[in-house]
Amino acid sequence: MKIKAGIIGAAGYTGGETIRLLLGHPFAELIFANSKSQAGKYLYEIHRDLVGETQLRFCDDTPKVDVLFLCLSHGESRVWLSENTLDANTFVIDMGNDFRLDGQCGDREFVYGLVEYQRDVIRMSQNIANPGCFATAIQLGLLPLAQQGLLSEVYTTGVTGSTGAGQKLQETSHFSWRLNNISPYKTLTHQHLDEMQKTLVSLQPNFGKNIYFTPWRGDFARGIFTSSMLTITHDLKEIYHLYKEYYAESAFTFVLDKNIDLKQVVNTNKCVISLEKEGDKLVIHTAIDNLLKGASGQAIQNMNLMFGIEETAGLKLKSIVY
Amino acid sequence: MKIKAGIIGAAGYTGGETIRLLLGHPFAELIFANSKSQAGKYLYEIHRDLVGETQLRFCDDTPKVDVLFLCLSHGESRVWLSENTLDANTFVIDMGNDFRLDGQCGDREFVYGLVEYQRDVIRMSQNIANPGCFATAIQLGLLPLAQQGLLSEVYTTGVTGSTGAGQKLQETSHFSWRLNNISPYKTLTHQHLDEMQKTLVSLQPNFGKNIYFTPWRGDFARGIFTSSMLTITHDLKEIYHLYKEYYAESAFTFVLDKNIDLKQVVNTNKCVISLEKEGDKLVIHTAIDNLLKGASGQAIQNMNLMFGIEETAGLKLKSIVY
Amino acid sequence: MKIKAGIIGAAGYTGGETIRLLLGHPFAELIFANSKSQAGKYLYEIHRDLVGETQLRFCDDTPKVDVLFLCLSHGESRVWLSENTLDANTFVIDMGNDFRLDGQCGDREFVYGLVEYQRDVIRMSQNIANPGCFATAIQLGLLPLAQQGLLSEVYTTGVTGSTGAGQKLQETSHFSWRLNNISPYKTLTHQHLDEMQKTLVSLQPNFGKNIYFTPWRGDFARGIFTSSMLTITHDLKEIYHLYKEYYAESAFTFVLDKNIDLKQVVNTNKCVISLEKEGDKLVIHTAIDNLLKGASGQAIQNMNLMFGIEETAGLKLKSIVY
Amino acid sequence: MKIKAGIIGAAGYTGGETIRLLLGHPFAELIFANSKSQAGKYLYEIHRDLVGETQLRFCDDTPKVDVLFLCLSHGESRVWLSENTLDANTFVIDMGNDFRLDGQCGDREFVYGLVEYQRDVIRMSQNIANPGCFATAIQLGLLPLAQQGLLSEVYTTGVTGSTGAGQKLQETSHFSWRLNNISPYKTLTHQHLDEMQKTLVSLQPNFGKNIYFTPWRGDFARGIFTSSMLTITHDLKEIYHLYKEYYAESAFTFVLDKNIDLKQVVNTNKCVISLEKEGDKLVIHTAIDNLLKGASGQAIQNMNLMFGIEETAGLKLKSIVY
Repeated sequence: MKIKAGIIGAAGYTGGETIRLLLGHPFAELIFANSKSQAGKYLYEIHRDLVGETQLRFCDDTPKVDVLFLCLSHGESRVWLSENTLDANTFVIDMGNDFRLDGQCGDREFVYGLVEYQRDVIRMSQNIANPGCFATAIQLGLLPLAQQGLLSEVYTTGVTGSTGAGQKLQETSHFSWRLNNISPYKTLTHQHLDEMQKTLVSLQPNFGKNIYFTPWRGDFARGIFTSSMLTITHDLKEIYHLYKEYYAESAFTFVLDKNIDLKQVVNTNKCVISLEKEGDKLVIHTAIDNLLKGASGQAIQNMNLMFGIEETAGLKLKSIVY
Repeated sequence: MKIKAGIIGAAGYTGGETIRLLLGHPFAELIFANSKSQAGKYLYEIHRDLVGETQLRFCDDTPKVDVLFLCLSHGESRVWLSENTLDANTFVIDMGNDFRLDGQCGDREFVYGLVEYQRDVIRMSQNIANPGCFATAIQLGLLPLAQQGLLSEVYTTGVTGSTGAGQKLQETSHFSWRLNNISPYKTLTHQHLDEMQKTLVSLQPNFGKNIYFTPWRGDFARGIFTSSMLTITHDLKEIYHLYKEYYAESAFTFVLDKNIDLKQVVNTNKCVISLEKEGDKLVIHTAIDNLLKGASGQAIQNMNLMFGIEETAGLKLKSIVY
Repeated sequence: MKIKAGIIGAAGYTGGETIRLLLGHPFAELIFANSKSQAGKYLYEIHRDLVGETQLRFCDDTPKVDVLFLCLSHGESRVWLSENTLDANTFVIDMGNDFRLDGQCGDREFVYGLVEYQRDVIRMSQNIANPGCFATAIQLGLLPLAQQGLLSEVYTTGVTGSTGAGQKLQETSHFSWRLNNISPYKTLTHQHLDEMQKTLVSLQPNFGKNIYFTPWRGDFARGIFTSSMLTITHDLKEIYHLYKEYYAESAFTFVLDKNIDLKQVVNTNKCVISLEKEGDKLVIHTAIDNLLKGASGQAIQNMNLMFGIEETAGLKLKSIVY
Repeated sequence: MKIKAGIIGAAGYTGGETIRLLLGHPFAELIFANSKSQAGKYLYEIHRDLVGETQLRFCDDTPKVDVLFLCLSHGESRVWLSENTLDANTFVIDMGNDFRLDGQCGDREFVYGLVEYQRDVIRMSQNIANPGCFATAIQLGLLPLAQQGLLSEVYTTGVTGSTGAGQKLQETSHFSWRLNNISPYKTLTHQHLDEMQKTLVSLQPNFGKNIYFTPWRGDFARGIFTSSMLTITHDLKEIYHLYKEYYAESAFTFVLDKNIDLKQVVNTNKCVISLEKEGDKLVIHTAIDNLLKGASGQAIQNMNLMFGIEETAGLKLKSIVY
């Protein structure tokens, strides 16, 4: 019997990706796709690539399901849960930032769904606060060092595709503006800093707030690439060893000896990591697809873990690569 | 038991896509990936997105398989078959243009693998000449009219992504040259004209060579978009009816009432078609992914048909869409 | 003494380009840049590349000038002129489509400002209806044939950069939607058809409405590329001769023997044309920058002609090329 | 009388940009464009955007000129000068990295041509080692702090357009590879580190080698964007004051209070800088066009200074902006 799944906020980008993944999932079934603004329309009228794949329409109600994905804007999930009554047995995966720092919401306790950080905790959970996209990319680059207490001040620059800014029309997502352009935003103040610090401090209590992050808007649609620089005396070989150990069992996170590039992972649930060192400075490069490993893909991975099925189910995706 | 598949010329773009599709195929198994130039290397060293998916290496021999994909440059397949001895029971699917016009090659008779043109013939075949990418996109837009003998002079413009030009380094595929650029090539002389004319004349004998085609190089990597203009007196509703009838049973080709766009189909095996009419002029728009429906995806579709399995097996791909 | 120039609607794309050209013009001076929505702000606050070039602010009045550029939305110029009183000696150049078909507006008679069509008429004029961007690109490809009465049915496909759709936020100009995408719009019904037919019929009265045009949205920001196909018995050499004769004196329009590409002309006022022929089918390729030769550049060229100064003044621009 | 200029290596990207700038320069004249590989061809056959602008052909000799631009590959300039005899009065501007660290070459003493660092030294010089592109962008962000001795460890990430990698065909400049991609290269080992350290130490002797730089390949053709992070206790207002003072007289470098973006400067000779601060961490963003301020534009600026003409002559360029 398949896992019955529903989506709230199904007309947006993360909602759309979650639909796509559920339609291709061998052990799950999309029961409903809720969208206040698009209720009544066929899914393929809004997600126009879905033609031929489903005759489902957006709805405005919330039938009982086994797992509910909240794909709302940041801050709206807590409100939605307070205004709607869910069956106590329904699992909830929230894509917003509502429960990443404070996981309590009525009777529900949300667990931070960074699989490579706490796979076993997630397996036993019923409510997931799915990590932010930049937070995922950067933390995957730092977890092995934090676990060993080896983090010092971290200087990170990251670049994100335009889908990270969502579907909303705005000047910095206007094609004529963004094409061939690079621009910084939320320098040193990005909202994902808090969830990263919480994780890293839990592993390395003396780390404090020593992560300094400059995000850039990139001129591509999908993906995040980050480079983090820090000081460490261990030699590169030892560090590589640490990383390969840490990720030895990971289904989607790969530590590579060669230079990596973003298109290795676009349209997949993978994260690739590479390490370079000169003197006592280490640089950690990571790449993910912001909508998959950074959002809907990781959400499905969390669902798989919570329901005790194969972690990679529904996530063996053909990369775009070229 | 799975279909055992091998690839000759596995290091190029269509070879890479065929690998990706076979790795995700529920009823087929990639037995070997032959590449003279890369023999000995892991597949993921060349197709770097394959990290974590296979430990196979490129080989330089040709073990016995159920089906062999020839992913060579145009003109090389005929040579390869003349220089290598295949088991008589091995099915062959050729991605080149070697057998599209003249299907005879020793004891083997190649059949033109345009599924929507002759699905039943393909089912009974053992050797497939896989259609060209532009030929696929344009013919799918014209088959329903040709079948009714309604084609008049056809004026087509089409634009292709850079992957259509392959992996070879050349000025017109240099990033600094091609970015933000559009340029024509092989105006009225594209090599796919012959195979299109052959198909269309077989359906409408009086059609002759009345297709005039201007191809453009586009500034994107994947996809083909074409618009064909012609004169016809039937009203648009009737014509839509014809198209919808013709493609009623097609698993991947969809006739849409609304404007279409290329990203509806990128990274999928679909073709979308829309029709518009003013006075007696009809415009037929089509879009495909040149490497999938226009090459490796169609090849797998042909394999599925020849082996009597579900036509869509291994081809339910997550679109890139954004 | 410099020509004193003012702009109405100076905050948009064509307004911005007109500002840039006037700031670099040796014989003209930008006196004011009027924008209702941005009045009071520095020009460089909106056109952020202008930092360091001018301390002018947007205004909401209309001081007396020698020439006024109307850079309003289509349909607004006629309204603006009816609501504002201009000095009778002020020359007016309208970028909209308000006066292209019907040039009469009170005492003013607007002349169609396609320089290569009627340079001498423009020289004697005081009011210019500046041609549309697609209309410019397509007509420059057809004028020499029309002049000789050699046009037959013309089948044109053209692709435009996103700036052609202006500054307004809309789905088809959203970065995540448009990147790597191609889509048709206004198939066979584009609003520039009328002005093209008017010109072509004036040269070849039997031409009628025999131009069929499919426009595409391109995934670049600047430029238009068109290919027009038609039937003609003359040989290519003769046709080339006609074109080279026709454009022998043109400062910006070049007939080239080799394949052309869009980036030859991006960020310049040039148009490049090439011709190819097979059998009795001729293909005419043209490329322009939609905001320059297709809008503000041509407007300045018209100003230069009307004021009797060198046609190329202020228009010797460094191309982007790469 | 105009400055007579010649170019060695005129068929490449920086050669091409130098040609374009010289053709538009009011006080200079391009006398010859030397290219071994293209000798005999018209400039517009290689730099195809130059159609209509010059009838000059590439040559393989070296007539006497007032100023010679060496646009050769790194390492070739020193060889070229040793193998060719120049008139002692000829000024030389070298675009390569041959003389940036060791300026001595026979009787000639090359001076580092970073205008904002030593405008007055340049004015008195006869031979210029033109700075590297990344070196220009990063140093312009650090000079004001270095001058005050305020630099601490600097962590810089920068992204460059594909033209930075030149005209040579290579995998990482292949369109299908680079489009929508980001990738690191020469992490912590970029060849521009040395020239930056030399400048910064000259201003702040205790700075040592404390600059750590991660370069990325970007998916655009023109431009460099950098963000440098460092620790400093001064408040942001003071720092802004320092920067504005330092660049008060600069013709092309602007310190802006708002976020900057790359397209503000593409196709211009400008550099824009903005500063942001949280706690004791300062982030300095800079943007330039790598081929102009980062190469040929800065070379012309150096020429202007050495010949005592207006610093901005020939460099008032229309930006691409959209």
